[in-house]
Amino acid sequence: MPETMLAVVKPEAKSGAEVRQVPIPKIGDTDVLVKVKVASVCGTDLHIYDWDPWAQHRIKPPLVPGHEFCGNVAAVGKNVTSVKEGDFVSAEMHVACGKCFQCRTGDAHICQFVTIIGVDSDGAFAEYVRIPESNIWKIDPAISADYASVLDPLGNAVHTVLAGEIAGQSIAISGTGPIGLFAIAVAHAVGAYPVFALEVNEHRRKLAKAMKAEYVLDPAKDDVKKIVLEATNGTGVDVVAEMSGNPNAIRTGFEIVRMGGRVSLLGTPTKPFELDFAESIIFKGATVQGIHGRRMYKTWYQMQSLLKSGKLDLSPAITDRMPLKDFTKGMARLKTGEASKILLYPNGMK
Amino acid sequence: MPETMLAVVKPEAKSGAEVRQVPIPKIGDTDVLVKVKVASVCGTDLHIYDWDPWAQHRIKPPLVPGHEFCGNVAAVGKNVTSVKEGDFVSAEMHVACGKCFQCRTGDAHICQFVTIIGVDSDGAFAEYVRIPESNIWKIDPAISADYASVLDPLGNAVHTVLAGEIAGQSIAISGTGPIGLFAIAVAHAVGAYPVFALEVNEHRRKLAKAMKAEYVLDPAKDDVKKIVLEATNGTGVDVVAEMSGNPNAIRTGFEIVRMGGRVSLLGTPTKPFELDFAESIIFKGATVQGIHGRRMYKTWYQMQSLLKSGKLDLSPAITDRMPLKDFTKGMARLKTGEASKILLYPNGMK
Amino acid sequence: MPETMLAVVKPEAKSGAEVRQVPIPKIGDTDVLVKVKVASVCGTDLHIYDWDPWAQHRIKPPLVPGHEFCGNVAAVGKNVTSVKEGDFVSAEMHVACGKCFQCRTGDAHICQFVTIIGVDSDGAFAEYVRIPESNIWKIDPAISADYASVLDPLGNAVHTVLAGEIAGQSIAISGTGPIGLFAIAVAHAVGAYPVFALEVNEHRRKLAKAMKAEYVLDPAKDDVKKIVLEATNGTGVDVVAEMSGNPNAIRTGFEIVRMGGRVSLLGTPTKPFELDFAESIIFKGATVQGIHGRRMYKTWYQMQSLLKSGKLDLSPAITDRMPLKDFTKGMARLKTGEASKILLYPNGMK
Amino acid sequence: MPETMLAVVKPEAKSGAEVRQVPIPKIGDTDVLVKVKVASVCGTDLHIYDWDPWAQHRIKPPLVPGHEFCGNVAAVGKNVTSVKEGDFVSAEMHVACGKCFQCRTGDAHICQFVTIIGVDSDGAFAEYVRIPESNIWKIDPAISADYASVLDPLGNAVHTVLAGEIAGQSIAISGTGPIGLFAIAVAHAVGAYPVFALEVNEHRRKLAKAMKAEYVLDPAKDDVKKIVLEATNGTGVDVVAEMSGNPNAIRTGFEIVRMGGRVSLLGTPTKPFELDFAESIIFKGATVQGIHGRRMYKTWYQMQSLLKSGKLDLSPAITDRMPLKDFTKGMARLKTGEASKILLYPNGMK
Repeated sequence: MPETMLAVVKPEAKSGAEVRQVPIPKIGDTDVLVKVKVASVCGTDLHIYDWDPWAQHRIKPPLVPGHEFCGNVAAVGKNVTSVKEGDFVSAEMHVACGKCFQCRTGDAHICQFVTIIGVDSDGAFAEYVRIPESNIWKIDPAISADYASVLDPLGNAVHTVLAGEIAGQSIAISGTGPIGLFAIAVAHAVGAYPVFALEVNEHRRKLAKAMKAEYVLDPAKDDVKKIVLEATNGTGVDVVAEMSGNPNAIRTGFEIVRMGGRVSLLGTPTKPFELDFAESIIFKGATVQGIHGRRMYKTWYQMQSLLKSGKLDLSPAITDRMPLKDFTKGMARLKTGEASKILLYPNGMK
Repeated sequence: MPETMLAVVKPEAKSGAEVRQVPIPKIGDTDVLVKVKVASVCGTDLHIYDWDPWAQHRIKPPLVPGHEFCGNVAAVGKNVTSVKEGDFVSAEMHVACGKCFQCRTGDAHICQFVTIIGVDSDGAFAEYVRIPESNIWKIDPAISADYASVLDPLGNAVHTVLAGEIAGQSIAISGTGPIGLFAIAVAHAVGAYPVFALEVNEHRRKLAKAMKAEYVLDPAKDDVKKIVLEATNGTGVDVVAEMSGNPNAIRTGFEIVRMGGRVSLLGTPTKPFELDFAESIIFKGATVQGIHGRRMYKTWYQMQSLLKSGKLDLSPAITDRMPLKDFTKGMARLKTGEASKILLYPNGMK
Repeated sequence: MPETMLAVVKPEAKSGAEVRQVPIPKIGDTDVLVKVKVASVCGTDLHIYDWDPWAQHRIKPPLVPGHEFCGNVAAVGKNVTSVKEGDFVSAEMHVACGKCFQCRTGDAHICQFVTIIGVDSDGAFAEYVRIPESNIWKIDPAISADYASVLDPLGNAVHTVLAGEIAGQSIAISGTGPIGLFAIAVAHAVGAYPVFALEVNEHRRKLAKAMKAEYVLDPAKDDVKKIVLEATNGTGVDVVAEMSGNPNAIRTGFEIVRMGGRVSLLGTPTKPFELDFAESIIFKGATVQGIHGRRMYKTWYQMQSLLKSGKLDLSPAITDRMPLKDFTKGMARLKTGEASKILLYPNGMK
Repeated sequence: MPETMLAVVKPEAKSGAEVRQVPIPKIGDTDVLVKVKVASVCGTDLHIYDWDPWAQHRIKPPLVPGHEFCGNVAAVGKNVTSVKEGDFVSAEMHVACGKCFQCRTGDAHICQFVTIIGVDSDGAFAEYVRIPESNIWKIDPAISADYASVLDPLGNAVHTVLAGEIAGQSIAISGTGPIGLFAIAVAHAVGAYPVFALEVNEHRRKLAKAMKAEYVLDPAKDDVKKIVLEATNGTGVDVVAEMSGNPNAIRTGFEIVRMGGRVSLLGTPTKPFELDFAESIIFKGATVQGIHGRRMYKTWYQMQSLLKSGKLDLSPAITDRMPLKDFTKGMARLKTGEASKILLYPNGMK
């Protein structure tokens, strides 16, 4: 085992990042060291790279970002029993406190004192990453490394789609970035029909079509409400999965959801906005859910089963692959709006 | 049976109302004619009386208002089988279409084509009222006429409080008009603890104290968030039952609800307002519910059981009693802000 | 419209049936007369034909059996508004009372006073059948007549599979008669994986393979428990859908279900039997559900959506088609054990 | 701190127990040592004392039994952060593995690899007991030591009663040993009405009356089904909470539960028995739940809130109090059938 490794580093409180050698993390008695095979880039990583207001408030440099990955166990602490060297794993990067009300009642995904590896401590854009045993997830051999590297955002999609009844229901997916695209596949796999994908970006609509959404609509041009009502016998859509965080998109979601329907909000608006609560929620008898992270670890089991079943074709959403050292190129690709999911390979491309 | 009866009538499209003789309603084969014993005044009736924008848009005079009542069956249509002359009854005044998606899937309370007796057709501020058999509710003899006359708003409170888990949970009731006051009693009866009542009006706070809420707070003066967090070990309240429709009250509700908590919205804001969805709902993993009417007829069965158990003391909320002919005085009393629930007696005060 | 029609008739209290001319049913103001296009044979029809103890107790001859069908509206009563002549329809044949506790709380499928068309009154093994408007289900044009004729048993399968969480879960389907076969397709369509089909009859196992169950096991020969535990990481199956009613099969279901799992019982045992409640249910923290009929009409909406999505290939289960006049041949085919679902055509084979 | 302490010890594999000095447990880095204030005797302790077949199979002497208690923290391991010396605590004695499917999905109460303190390792019938920090429950100061010592069985009652909808519902509690008695109080506190207590033992019926059950029936003499149907408008009881484990009692539970009702089974039958599954479960559309232990730690939070609200009067169920050294007398008292809950005081009676 060498002393140092290649890693993406946010060295100080300004935009940009460096790819350089840093020490390999030391592990404690209950930790696992993972040799990263594939890491995946999230919008959050771009926020950190660009040093936007959220990042300025949250991130304490120096930091190795990266919270989506898979790899093989390189070493384990002496108290670790559930994995051994060589095991192929991913991890839930939200580290819950285990002691708050939420943690003690099965809601660790909304732990009051959560910290996130790759955001609050060094993450997976590196050759190695340290993970507490509690957060390790063993990958079933039937699942490919590419898919294993995107379990975090796929888990967001699964958590959102499965946050209520869905089989035999119609769903509108609002925003088709990577999580929205994954949600199309998930919705189909669990019996939702039809799937309406709502997206203003042309390139993302193209990907939504590749994911086989029954309706791909441009809210800037199409009369979304009219089309949805016609397709649903005038009733409206059963479920809205909101992935964009855009106020107009959210308001549209409330317009098209049926009375008694469900609106699951994952996309995060950057500031407060106006909504007609009486018409949107109250008279409709609607249910609105804030969705955060992935359920620990119910979502992971659901995901594993769906992936093993072969029903999830995520390939259209994975647009770019590159060595970790090209991280900066990846950031540039993301900004073109043409890339969806970018995979990074810290230890070779195969 | 006489030909005419005393009734409150909104004769034309302007403020005010008359108490005068009108024909007794004719019943069809599936209808029930009820001799009204006690009717109860709702805020909606004041909107109709004052001819506010909502009323101007919805009400088609002439109309006999009144949608909260109890009485005895005076006559039944030939196809009616579930009640007979003399039976003591109340009614669900939302008449559902029976054919839309919601009606066919157990959600008739949010029927797409609902009409409301006392709003869209002649109601219960009269000696007699006509009700379709499907909407009649037989009153258990253990329940007093006064309580039987307020099943509609009590049902709102029961529907709201019981719209999710509640036993062994803390609840904040935001707004203590009649429904909020009833909700305090219901929350206690179903094992909620502690109950925080939030109300800016001093007289209503006094009633909330009489209903024995553990905390009665004035959001205009008290540091509600601080008090709630201290009383809940820093976690926040499990449930918010919003009865006021006031934007500030709703925002406060989202501030004090715990991560993963429930916010049930019954009070209807009069216009759109701003909310920080990211902090209020999404990061919190909160569930927000629009609450409308009462579940047909699950809420009614729940109410009946709670009333029969003797656990609901609603008396502090019933502040005024008067003959139907004094309806205009009742409206004046409501406007003083000192009356909560006003009961009207069309056929004598006992 | 002629006066008489061809129908299967159970003329008196003994085994057998006749195919003969009978009067076409008269309809009332709220009834619909349907010209039957395809009817489908259920095991219940064989019980009636064979005059077994259940039939002797329940059936009052003369009776036209048949409760699975589709067809076109031939005439409507004067109060009927939701369908018109020519519409392609099926029907829920459980006629609920509408007034009992279950009917008034969204559980009409377990109405205390239900009657069944084709069991308690004349059914669909005829050129025409009379159905109350409330029970008519309009068929979406995307759904074929063959599939439209089996909505009743398909609805049993949908009701059972969707009676709890299922997406991303493993399921064992115990007994692969027609409903079990349909359940395999439904389970796959709603994201269950893997599907274990348990069946002692070789021909039915062959059909289960054609339905693409991941595991098709013979409880008489295979070590079901061992195979299931190996395939589920030692945990057991998440859900058991019991379609056989066989005591041994039910006990096996409880052996293989995981702790905290769900056992949904649709198949009806003919007499009491022994179970180790402590090990099977209590220590396991299992949930056991009695499943009866189809939810009115939630199951129907779910079914419609799943069928329209094209995810349900039911064709392997439909083994025989014949004109209604060959009903007796159909009974003989059923008894060979080689037929699964038999379709009857009262008005021509296309 | 002394080296030894007084404890009840099951010294070898035969009936009986000794009260003698044993070493005080050593604690590890994540353990808490608690000085026991009050311990409470469970039926399980009698099984161990009497060395019945279950005990012979499960218990490995020497063992200090006792799994219901409260006390003050005497010492903490170096990694313990959530409690400190002097804190008043109780504990969940089911120690879950934390790594199995159930533990990782919020169902630790049915952990596949659970061990129980006081059954599988030394327990609380002693001056001191060692508890892992994860299982410690801090007692709210509003809760008395007597009540704090029975949180384990009270938790059984809360878990059972709250395992489904209950507010505004009727419930039959079958068997009124200590948990059944507690369940009466819990049912009332969470809005159940009426409560039917079914019990063949006269002394226990007397206690059930003291707990204020609306109906206290003797299944050996009373026509339970008739009485329940009359009291429920012919519909049957909404919920059955089965605490006896007696086959006849369980069968009676299924006879009186309404269609679509819930039967929650906590009492454990000692061997398999016959049930008519078709009539009892399937045609009824009933839900049957195996109930085990208490939800970690949702039940504990619910319990805490109910106790703090003052709505639970458990005093009739606490029949005996004695010093720990009189343990053998306690066993004798239990066998008379006159004692319900017996409290033991290892460190003085106040």
